[in-house]
Amino acid sequence: MIITLKNGTKKFDAPVTILDIAKSISEGLARAALAGKIDGKPTELNTIVDKDCKVEIITFADEEGKSIYRHTASHVLAQAVLNIYPTATLAIGPSISTGFYYDIDFKTPVTVEDLEKIEQQMAKIIKADYPIERFVLPRKEALNLMKKNEYKKELINELPADAEISFYKQGEFVDMCTGPHLTSTGKIKCFKLISVTGAYWRGNENNKMLTRIYGTAFDKKSELEEYLKELEEAKLRDHNKLGRELNIFMTDENIGQGLPLLKPKGARILQILQRFVEDEEERRGYLLTKTPSMAKSNLYKTSGHWDHYRDKMFLIGDEDSEDVMALRPMTCPFQFTIYNDELHSYKDLPVRYAETATLFRKEASGEMHGLIRVRQFTLSDGHIVCTPDQLEEEFAGCVDLLYYLLDCLGIRDDVSFRFSKWDPKNKEKYIDNPEAWEKAQTLMRNILDDLKIEYVEAEGEAAFYGPKLDVQARNVHGKEDTLFTIQIDFSLAERFNMVYIDENGDKKHPFIIHRSSIGCYERTLAMLIEKYAGALPVWMSAEQVRVLSLTERTENNVKEIVSELRKSGVRATADVRNEKIGYKIREAQLEKIPYMLIIGDKEVEENVVAVRARGEGDIGKMSIKDFIKRVKDEIEAKK
Amino acid sequence: MIITLKNGTKKFDAPVTILDIAKSISEGLARAALAGKIDGKPTELNTIVDKDCKVEIITFADEEGKSIYRHTASHVLAQAVLNIYPTATLAIGPSISTGFYYDIDFKTPVTVEDLEKIEQQMAKIIKADYPIERFVLPRKEALNLMKKNEYKKELINELPADAEISFYKQGEFVDMCTGPHLTSTGKIKCFKLISVTGAYWRGNENNKMLTRIYGTAFDKKSELEEYLKELEEAKLRDHNKLGRELNIFMTDENIGQGLPLLKPKGARILQILQRFVEDEEERRGYLLTKTPSMAKSNLYKTSGHWDHYRDKMFLIGDEDSEDVMALRPMTCPFQFTIYNDELHSYKDLPVRYAETATLFRKEASGEMHGLIRVRQFTLSDGHIVCTPDQLEEEFAGCVDLLYYLLDCLGIRDDVSFRFSKWDPKNKEKYIDNPEAWEKAQTLMRNILDDLKIEYVEAEGEAAFYGPKLDVQARNVHGKEDTLFTIQIDFSLAERFNMVYIDENGDKKHPFIIHRSSIGCYERTLAMLIEKYAGALPVWMSAEQVRVLSLTERTENNVKEIVSELRKSGVRATADVRNEKIGYKIREAQLEKIPYMLIIGDKEVEENVVAVRARGEGDIGKMSIKDFIKRVKDEIEAKK
Repeated sequence: MIITLKNGTKKFDAPVTILDIAKSISEGLARAALAGKIDGKPTELNTIVDKDCKVEIITFADEEGKSIYRHTASHVLAQAVLNIYPTATLAIGPSISTGFYYDIDFKTPVTVEDLEKIEQQMAKIIKADYPIERFVLPRKEALNLMKKNEYKKELINELPADAEISFYKQGEFVDMCTGPHLTSTGKIKCFKLISVTGAYWRGNENNKMLTRIYGTAFDKKSELEEYLKELEEAKLRDHNKLGRELNIFMTDENIGQGLPLLKPKGARILQILQRFVEDEEERRGYLLTKTPSMAKSNLYKTSGHWDHYRDKMFLIGDEDSEDVMALRPMTCPFQFTIYNDELHSYKDLPVRYAETATLFRKEASGEMHGLIRVRQFTLSDGHIVCTPDQLEEEFAGCVDLLYYLLDCLGIRDDVSFRFSKWDPKNKEKYIDNPEAWEKAQTLMRNILDDLKIEYVEAEGEAAFYGPKLDVQARNVHGKEDTLFTIQIDFSLAERFNMVYIDENGDKKHPFIIHRSSIGCYERTLAMLIEKYAGALPVWMSAEQVRVLSLTERTENNVKEIVSELRKSGVRATADVRNEKIGYKIREAQLEKIPYMLIIGDKEVEENVVAVRARGEGDIGKMSIKDFIKRVKDEIEAKK
Repeated sequence: MIITLKNGTKKFDAPVTILDIAKSISEGLARAALAGKIDGKPTELNTIVDKDCKVEIITFADEEGKSIYRHTASHVLAQAVLNIYPTATLAIGPSISTGFYYDIDFKTPVTVEDLEKIEQQMAKIIKADYPIERFVLPRKEALNLMKKNEYKKELINELPADAEISFYKQGEFVDMCTGPHLTSTGKIKCFKLISVTGAYWRGNENNKMLTRIYGTAFDKKSELEEYLKELEEAKLRDHNKLGRELNIFMTDENIGQGLPLLKPKGARILQILQRFVEDEEERRGYLLTKTPSMAKSNLYKTSGHWDHYRDKMFLIGDEDSEDVMALRPMTCPFQFTIYNDELHSYKDLPVRYAETATLFRKEASGEMHGLIRVRQFTLSDGHIVCTPDQLEEEFAGCVDLLYYLLDCLGIRDDVSFRFSKWDPKNKEKYIDNPEAWEKAQTLMRNILDDLKIEYVEAEGEAAFYGPKLDVQARNVHGKEDTLFTIQIDFSLAERFNMVYIDENGDKKHPFIIHRSSIGCYERTLAMLIEKYAGALPVWMSAEQVRVLSLTERTENNVKEIVSELRKSGVRATADVRNEKIGYKIREAQLEKIPYMLIIGDKEVEENVVAVRARGEGDIGKMSIKDFIKRVKDEIEAKK
């Protein structure tokens, strides 16, 4: 029996377990081993190998190792919960990038105060080191075993007829699970329960709200501690907390979920970003449009949104009526309508449209989050209509704009690129034209490779009309979202009968690029708040300078300085309240104002301003002229 | 019998008609007399006066005279229509400021081609000079007379029990009408039918669509001809025609009525206006907000919109469900929610909020018009929260902003002011607090008089929560609409529980001013297009300068000049197409571009630009520097 390993092959005379193979390599590897892979398929360490194959040893250093380790921890959590709350019903408990969770239907509410008790129970289960055993049941017996659990039964009933239904048992506890898992509960070295939230069964707000317990697990205590420390720090940067504290945004239950209100500070930042983006796009030859937020269903039937996206659209009127209107989830069909209002020759192409568009998506209650996932948002949406020959250059232009924006926002190192492809196994989600999909994806891959973009590939993440390049960023909770996107569309031009007249006088369908520039303004703002812990760069600060009076005598001087700053295009305000200077400084610090100018009698006498810079403290006195130059240079450079 | 006239009194020994009285003054007046007024109440010329009273003679020079004259013309139209189309049913036919119309339910469609035939029939009726006789019927007999006319019966049934139901007869023709009318059809000297449109019965799109025939009538042929000429000229300025020709906006039936799409030129003008307004408001101490376009019904229930405005709101979801959402028709409750998110002391007031808000109103199909009356629009909405002491100064600040904007837009002489009051006879349309209404209206009248604003008063035009000062403008069709508005609100602060802490530490409800600055951007843009016949002032032109190459050789020079203009903040484009210069100039003229620069070899050699100004033609050569200064000065001055 020949086993192919990462660094060569090994011969075994009798069947061996994965663990045996690890041992044959080194004792250290055997100690670190969590699971294995046989011919690419993950499996337990105690799986027996009895024929020629390729074997890999998985450790905590591998992403898959972390995932298996934490998935087992979620089973330990579930076992502990059932020990303490025998009436609870388990739903699902996967690992996630930062740990794991389990969604549980409790008869009595469980809060964060109960976590310690559950952790103690988990520790006991780990200490008992129950072996974890896999077994498989036929569907009927599986349903019988899970007869008291409606959730698991629902899952079983949705499995294909030929699916293998596997279970994992540790002590008295059994859970339905595809695995793989660690071989015993004692393998978990350190773990921590993090939080409790509500979560709808299957993320659908029409379903029952369950209790989700989040936790994490590591194989080294130091790593766990480091992670928990990061988590604490991240919490302080959480835009959903900090953004409210800084009066950037608020929500209100009478208005509704996913509908944040931008308060004056937040609205000003958005205005700054919007002007910046619209000006940059104008420079790059984009034509601005302003199109309605709703349309009759006809428009979406033509675009395909009605068939592929209706669930996420807010409808006005009866769904089955011809007069039904829908709030738009995208701008494309509107800009296409404008394109079709005039005749175009190949000489007019490319046509680049941009709009600061208000869009609406019916996100499920459980999905919404701060400014990141909302029901109404503002997208820097745009569409480029071009000939096939122009496609690569136009795509490169979009990438160049993204790089420029990432640099200006200071987040180029915080994002990754994802090449999002269709999923041939889920054809109903996409325009049905496999050949065109493969062609468009090959085209896009070639462009990405030409542009030397490093990307991961993701099947099933394309738009319904074509493949995408997504710029991905993680929030403080580790959740990844798309910030910006560039999409190649090979089908909507035909559906909308969009044409241009080519060199020979023939009508041709153009290619279309769908692209965002700065993306969803609200989401980008959230990411910026988290990145900068609220201390936004000067150029995008709503209030760049606050001028403080040291005594009542300097009130008028302060107002004059503010007026001079404003005339120079610097956003400045005065704090001439009759309060102690320490109090006024502290307040400005809490509000993360980039610069404070303190004006006392001495400063007036010397005709200077005393400057405090955010994060630096007192940086000395200078003339107002020098200060204005300093700030203007910083704004200009978008530092 | 003593008759009091405008210039003294007259004594008559026996009963006389109004016409007799006119004759007794002068034959000329008798010839001009169309009707009269007895103690202020309009009546026919043949009405007999038999006791002491005040009498006025009405001629075509009076607004009421024009109205009576044209109302009779509408009866002649109706009679002519029934002569030609005996199966038609009459609905209503009033006079309007520019003429008259009649809404008619035709069995066969009638178009503008049929108007000549109807005019000929009208001419016959006028020539026949049928006497016009008034008679009154009890309700039962009135209903019997109108038994074949569902429209008139509906009107009769809605009259109060004690109403006098009057009819007017001319020849065989009888119409129900309150009058008064001319004494015979022959009194009409010149008339013209203008157009045919659709109009819902009572303006409600749930009712049947009728055919509306518009016409006008004058007592002098020269005046009719002058009016028709003006009408022709106005049509050329009609934004609904010109705005489309200039590629400012478009509509599309797949998107829906009242949902215009602003094409690149229109979107750019809106961007220019929006930046201008937001900057001016920032200078005036407004805080920008950005709030959602929809909210749960709860919010509108608190504000009163649910009770007083629901018919005009687009609902999402089932009207009776608690989860129903509505697209917002106003911004007020959203900015109030932001106010309530923080505590306010009297020292923080006034707080001035402004937002460039997208609003939605379910206008009836028959009501919509171009960019003037639409279902989605952008309002420069804002609310000032202040103490009672601050109300007048804040109101004056709003008026000052309006004056400033009217001046910048160049339309100060084109608007009039309207003091819009509630209607105590229609209490259900308003917040029910008569005492507060009277108080608020007195307050507002005092402020308006202090500010020396000349206004007309309009009962029944207030907002449901308070009186308004409306800035009114007429479109090319003579229809008046509100451009800007300032409103005093005495009730919503209480409904929203908005408070501030006063000098004594007590909670007080503030006053609120609702105001628009530049109003609805789309409507203002429409008015500007009509005012300037599309030739917008340079500062708000989407394209300020077009640089044209005279030969292929100067292409690069043109591009350099465009680049220099853009760097100086001038919106410029290049036309380097290989077309004849005459063709390129004509195209720029049709697009109403303010400036053209023509660049040939000679201009390059002399390092100058040859300038053509809109409306002036060739204005000679100058250095690019001088030209930039000229344009920048013009932009700066908002000429």
